[in-house]
Amino acid sequence: MNPNPISLPRRHLLVGSGASLAAAGLASWSRGAAAAGEAVAPTGATAASKPLPPYVSWKDSSSMIVHSSSTIETRRSAFGTSVLTPAEQLYVRNNLPAPDASILADREAWEISIEGVKNPRTLTLSELKRMGLETTAMVLQCSGNGRGYFPSKPSGTPWQVGAAGCVVWSGVPVRRVAEALGGMAQGMAFMTGTGGEKLPEGLDPKSVIVERSVPAAAMADALLAWEMNGAPISLAHGGPLRLIVPGYTGVNNIKYVKRLAFTAQESDAKIMSHGYRISPPGGKGDPSQPSVQEMSVKSWINGPGTDGKPVAAGDAQIHGVAFGGLHPVAKVEVSVDGGKRWTQARLVGPDLGRYAWRQFVLAARLPAGSHTLVSRATDTAGNVQPEQRVENAGGYNNTSWADHAVKVSVA
Amino acid sequence: MNPNPISLPRRHLLVGSGASLAAAGLASWSRGAAAAGEAVAPTGATAASKPLPPYVSWKDSSSMIVHSSSTIETRRSAFGTSVLTPAEQLYVRNNLPAPDASILADREAWEISIEGVKNPRTLTLSELKRMGLETTAMVLQCSGNGRGYFPSKPSGTPWQVGAAGCVVWSGVPVRRVAEALGGMAQGMAFMTGTGGEKLPEGLDPKSVIVERSVPAAAMADALLAWEMNGAPISLAHGGPLRLIVPGYTGVNNIKYVKRLAFTAQESDAKIMSHGYRISPPGGKGDPSQPSVQEMSVKSWINGPGTDGKPVAAGDAQIHGVAFGGLHPVAKVEVSVDGGKRWTQARLVGPDLGRYAWRQFVLAARLPAGSHTLVSRATDTAGNVQPEQRVENAGGYNNTSWADHAVKVSVA
Repeated sequence: MNPNPISLPRRHLLVGSGASLAAAGLASWSRGAAAAGEAVAPTGATAASKPLPPYVSWKDSSSMIVHSSSTIETRRSAFGTSVLTPAEQLYVRNNLPAPDASILADREAWEISIEGVKNPRTLTLSELKRMGLETTAMVLQCSGNGRGYFPSKPSGTPWQVGAAGCVVWSGVPVRRVAEALGGMAQGMAFMTGTGGEKLPEGLDPKSVIVERSVPAAAMADALLAWEMNGAPISLAHGGPLRLIVPGYTGVNNIKYVKRLAFTAQESDAKIMSHGYRISPPGGKGDPSQPSVQEMSVKSWINGPGTDGKPVAAGDAQIHGVAFGGLHPVAKVEVSVDGGKRWTQARLVGPDLGRYAWRQFVLAARLPAGSHTLVSRATDTAGNVQPEQRVENAGGYNNTSWADHAVKVSVA
Repeated sequence: MNPNPISLPRRHLLVGSGASLAAAGLASWSRGAAAAGEAVAPTGATAASKPLPPYVSWKDSSSMIVHSSSTIETRRSAFGTSVLTPAEQLYVRNNLPAPDASILADREAWEISIEGVKNPRTLTLSELKRMGLETTAMVLQCSGNGRGYFPSKPSGTPWQVGAAGCVVWSGVPVRRVAEALGGMAQGMAFMTGTGGEKLPEGLDPKSVIVERSVPAAAMADALLAWEMNGAPISLAHGGPLRLIVPGYTGVNNIKYVKRLAFTAQESDAKIMSHGYRISPPGGKGDPSQPSVQEMSVKSWINGPGTDGKPVAAGDAQIHGVAFGGLHPVAKVEVSVDGGKRWTQARLVGPDLGRYAWRQFVLAARLPAGSHTLVSRATDTAGNVQPEQRVENAGGYNNTSWADHAVKVSVA
């Protein structure tokens, strides 16, 4: 029996060129692929933007930077000050091309297999809607947000701040679903979600399928969600059904989720075993390294001056966003001299809960000249946003306040 | 000197036909106009929908009922469960046709005249942005929302529940602007906002201008806002600058605001003196009657079954929205038998503050048959949503829980 019944040799993916992956429509969580083929924009530069691809033609093009058809970020100057990120401005990052839009034709009929519970079964979205309802606001952030600030120019999309947004999800709590099916089976340590993307032919499914495991305890606040920001979830953002794991980076929030399993082991899909690992600079991902999962405290300034136009001298409202990952934000400090002196900013607007970001504002007088604006957040557990990034091969988890500084010209 | 230097006789508006007003592009806060010409849909019926007019072609047509080019409501079944109303689903109600979109070409240059302060002056939007920043979530609701449930069929748009939404605004606090200009002048009792719509020619400006006064105390939480739901305010919703008076009905939130004045008297514009008054049934508005301003405690059910499809027998998540106008919601009760027995529902999702609505959910088993679902909210001041509407000629302020009942067929 052929253990790998796919015509294309497996090593074609594992050691293949970026071009062959691109041909299969795959994005680059695979380090090998990215290293071989992807362009990396200079740190801090505004990447040139391509037109929006058809499946997200409804996005606000003036707010977005299109890196590729599956990697699109929000411009820093486009982030508003009213807590929420509208769907039209929310970043897109798909590890596989989005499924055909026909999967949205009958949302209620979408099926998900629930496994690793006492009474495993398949449920339709219609059935899920009758089991429970909860609504959670949270920061959705790509694991590689801020990668563009790594001087080492890791392969992968050189995101600046815009592979993140604060959105509101509605769905049924995962814990409610597990309870209804008799509870988690014994010995299960992980919650594993599997995406419903169509897998490219000719490749080992394990090498491309989007399947991620998080600690089973993350079930506590997880949702199977059908709605984002008050509307049914769009195709680009994982509709009709998405696994939402608040506090965990984007890739752990499985789009088009078709299977939710409580498992004894982490998934052996390559995106889990080798992708999204904190590898030493120059190294490759492997299962012994920490996986990119929980987010950490982070903040950045969104204005003024992020649109590249000169700021008028005098009064300014310096504003931005701050979030704690798993903990609420306790405070945010702002510096207008690159981090020498700090002043506590004011948190403004509604508090949407521990997983959401807060807006902060500092009123300051900016004299003519050049100023380096930075922000530094502290969460309620006492974690302080660090000055320096933690170097890693994938360019993940950049929370460095220094990297996120904004240089503004005041006239 | 001619006190009314407009060619069209003034009485043409005051006692003219609905057709002549329609020709001038005017909607019908004027009772005379509406009585003469407007069609009223049967109570509770779903009004037939027209195509979206060009200036709101970006709205989600499947979510909207288009009554006219300036009166468009959200379908009850389209309200999501995630607290927010996306801009694409938010109702539209314009008292005059929206200005030309060219007013958005240079948002920063928009000017507003601030009067009734010690040092009155004109400020640009760019200057306002440097004076302060606050973010407020609030229910925006048309004064006539629920008019469609009045058996008396008042003239005006027969809104059901959908002339309302919960949105987030960012702007500068009005109190900050007043302070910066030396504070409110002595003896001022009202805050009066004037809209920047282009007035139709041939009519007395006072008879058509959108100008409303609210008590000066409402300044405390008012904003001059440039952003809604994270994006610059669209033309349909009053961009580039809108006066936001949380807790007050829609008409008091002046679009394209070009003048903000602290005044000793209420505006003598007809929309203030005669429009939006609580008149006895069959009567006409006059300045002696209460003006439609603060909202009161209200709730309604949005699902299941509001899309007209039969609901499956068994478990159901009955959900809706509740708000208190000036006070937060304390509790919501739900009845599945038309109001005979009540069960307290669960408030879910983030609490966006006192002016926002809350989502509520009640898990219930619905056996086959017909059921009348109703909800009843109580605010923190102890006000209970009433069973009956207060009859009035304009069909304003309908908070009756009985009127907002949903009859569902369970199979």
